[in-house]
Amino acid sequence: MRPIITLLTDFGTADGYVAEMKGVLFSLAPDSEIVDLSHDIPAHDVELARLTVARYWRRFPSGAVHLALVDPGVGTARACLAVESEGRYLVGPDNGVLSPALLLPGARAVALPVPPTAARTFHGRDVFAPAAAALAMGQVLDSLGVAVDAPLVRRTKEAVRREDGAVVGEVIAIDRFGNAITNLLGARSGVVAAAGRPIPIRGTYADVAPGAPVAISGSTGLLEIAVREGSAAASLGLVRGAAVVWYRG
Amino acid sequence: MRPIITLLTDFGTADGYVAEMKGVLFSLAPDSEIVDLSHDIPAHDVELARLTVARYWRRFPSGAVHLALVDPGVGTARACLAVESEGRYLVGPDNGVLSPALLLPGARAVALPVPPTAARTFHGRDVFAPAAAALAMGQVLDSLGVAVDAPLVRRTKEAVRREDGAVVGEVIAIDRFGNAITNLLGARSGVVAAAGRPIPIRGTYADVAPGAPVAISGSTGLLEIAVREGSAAASLGLVRGAAVVWYRG
Amino acid sequence: MRPIITLLTDFGTADGYVAEMKGVLFSLAPDSEIVDLSHDIPAHDVELARLTVARYWRRFPSGAVHLALVDPGVGTARACLAVESEGRYLVGPDNGVLSPALLLPGARAVALPVPPTAARTFHGRDVFAPAAAALAMGQVLDSLGVAVDAPLVRRTKEAVRREDGAVVGEVIAIDRFGNAITNLLGARSGVVAAAGRPIPIRGTYADVAPGAPVAISGSTGLLEIAVREGSAAASLGLVRGAAVVWYRG
Repeated sequence: MRPIITLLTDFGTADGYVAEMKGVLFSLAPDSEIVDLSHDIPAHDVELARLTVARYWRRFPSGAVHLALVDPGVGTARACLAVESEGRYLVGPDNGVLSPALLLPGARAVALPVPPTAARTFHGRDVFAPAAAALAMGQVLDSLGVAVDAPLVRRTKEAVRREDGAVVGEVIAIDRFGNAITNLLGARSGVVAAAGRPIPIRGTYADVAPGAPVAISGSTGLLEIAVREGSAAASLGLVRGAAVVWYRG
Repeated sequence: MRPIITLLTDFGTADGYVAEMKGVLFSLAPDSEIVDLSHDIPAHDVELARLTVARYWRRFPSGAVHLALVDPGVGTARACLAVESEGRYLVGPDNGVLSPALLLPGARAVALPVPPTAARTFHGRDVFAPAAAALAMGQVLDSLGVAVDAPLVRRTKEAVRREDGAVVGEVIAIDRFGNAITNLLGARSGVVAAAGRPIPIRGTYADVAPGAPVAISGSTGLLEIAVREGSAAASLGLVRGAAVVWYRG
Repeated sequence: MRPIITLLTDFGTADGYVAEMKGVLFSLAPDSEIVDLSHDIPAHDVELARLTVARYWRRFPSGAVHLALVDPGVGTARACLAVESEGRYLVGPDNGVLSPALLLPGARAVALPVPPTAARTFHGRDVFAPAAAALAMGQVLDSLGVAVDAPLVRRTKEAVRREDGAVVGEVIAIDRFGNAITNLLGARSGVVAAAGRPIPIRGTYADVAPGAPVAISGSTGLLEIAVREGSAAASLGLVRGAAVVWYRG
């Protein structure tokens, strides 16, 4: 099986930054499978990138190398990391985008050296892509840099809190369909209050009438607020950070 | 030759849904070629997806597996289908998106079972991607589910009608360049009336002056209305469903 | 190693034009690696396409075939070209999009014949993709068409000019982050005047305060104007063509 290198960036594709990185990857790891995951992360949105990485990184086979490059701090002193966790590799900046893998027991990280010739505004091409190619070609993690422990940036979902028997969470992302993803895990019955109204928890969209709001335990187990055949974000005015209160009923 | 699995969705890429599906595909069919066709179908636009599938499904080599997932009814009772037609395979919901292949003589379809563990909001990951991987790995269609005949949803272009010696059709899609694609097939001469004005049928854009409207028999044989070096949709106010009348002249 | 065919277009993906081309490529060159670089070039923006091609074409391994299709003149008499330059191949219209490769010493070009069956609005599918597939399958350039010399369209960056000891350049592109790329090469110290204000040249974004403008010698050596943690285009009102004056200081 060919080694897999996946790409997640906020670069878009029109300017050619991703194209340059692919040229580097095909030059240094010619037998690898280069897999686009997204280049449409909104510019500098480390938080959405982290949530998206959490969705996919372990669904790929063992040995996969994941480049995750949303890096508003490029050119600052933030470290460049390569991580090994649960048999997969991740390469990206030390800003929390790799937290889903870094926070697991047994995760190991090294700091990648930045060569003096690297463009200070494009570590993706000159630091991260070469490291991903090296991992895909079978180099071991420790050969790429010096082991680092603390203090790596660790990002997690905002914690929920208990209050008067209810659980208070919030919207952490709005997806392309206008569904509002929350940080409430395991809420499979009862009701939520969001956008000033009660919303029933049901099994799927079709359990309510077209146009009606519904809360669903989504495909990662997080509660989502949706509007059947519509957009919860547009209809209910939900935005990232909006409070969502769960009453188990 | 490696098996080909193509992907058409309305998922966008930023939220990670496509990334999760690719993880499943690479895990279950590691030697296959995973080919992005589009993730930018407007949300829930089954009709555009159907037109787009019609363009490409038979251009791929025999044996190709096409995932076509625009599925506003996910989680309802609509069937999940795998189809074999003209040597290619298609996997997607029973909502008409697969009609270009289903409507051909000799097409066969099976209904995929939905495992109880499948997320009710993400059959793409838990039902359709595993079925596509199985087909790519050489499993036969009949091993994936129970044969279904009627009543599969069948979607076709709106029929044109004859009226006073003219043919009345309509705009069925607006493409990225603002060209208005119609359901008029084989119109290679004469004139059309659209947006309240006569528009000549010519061989190509360059047959009219910059800024002028022109009708052309497009790359699939359907008549298109264009504006040279401009957008017909913007200049003429053409939208999906707008009437286009063809006078053979 | 498998032959590489890269794709750059202004087609978007939703309408299926790229999908049709991929079907042709996989049919004619089944063992090749088909690599998306971008389908998000703004419609008809030959100039951005040229700049983007300049970034990547030589970063891919020898033998790579680059399809670059931004072709507002499709269907006119403009030639269809295949080019060999520095061991890579490029295929696209004769409108300047291939200039980065064509302008190098030793570059050779042939004009591709347009078969009478080719759709006059879609040479990408019927002329360029088959030529790219032939090159990927090992056909030699001269077997594809007749050698052409002059007068191929040659596009280059606008020249800078010297004036009172300063160098006057301009903005040639705005990237996804709002950075304004200029045609000033090798400006690594001093100050620039742009948008009516002085902007210091520094090594990287982090050398100025958040929200402050800064000029940086970018990853291709061209001077870029950025705003740290912001958008120079939005904050400073910079657009393509805006004057940028470099004082070496």
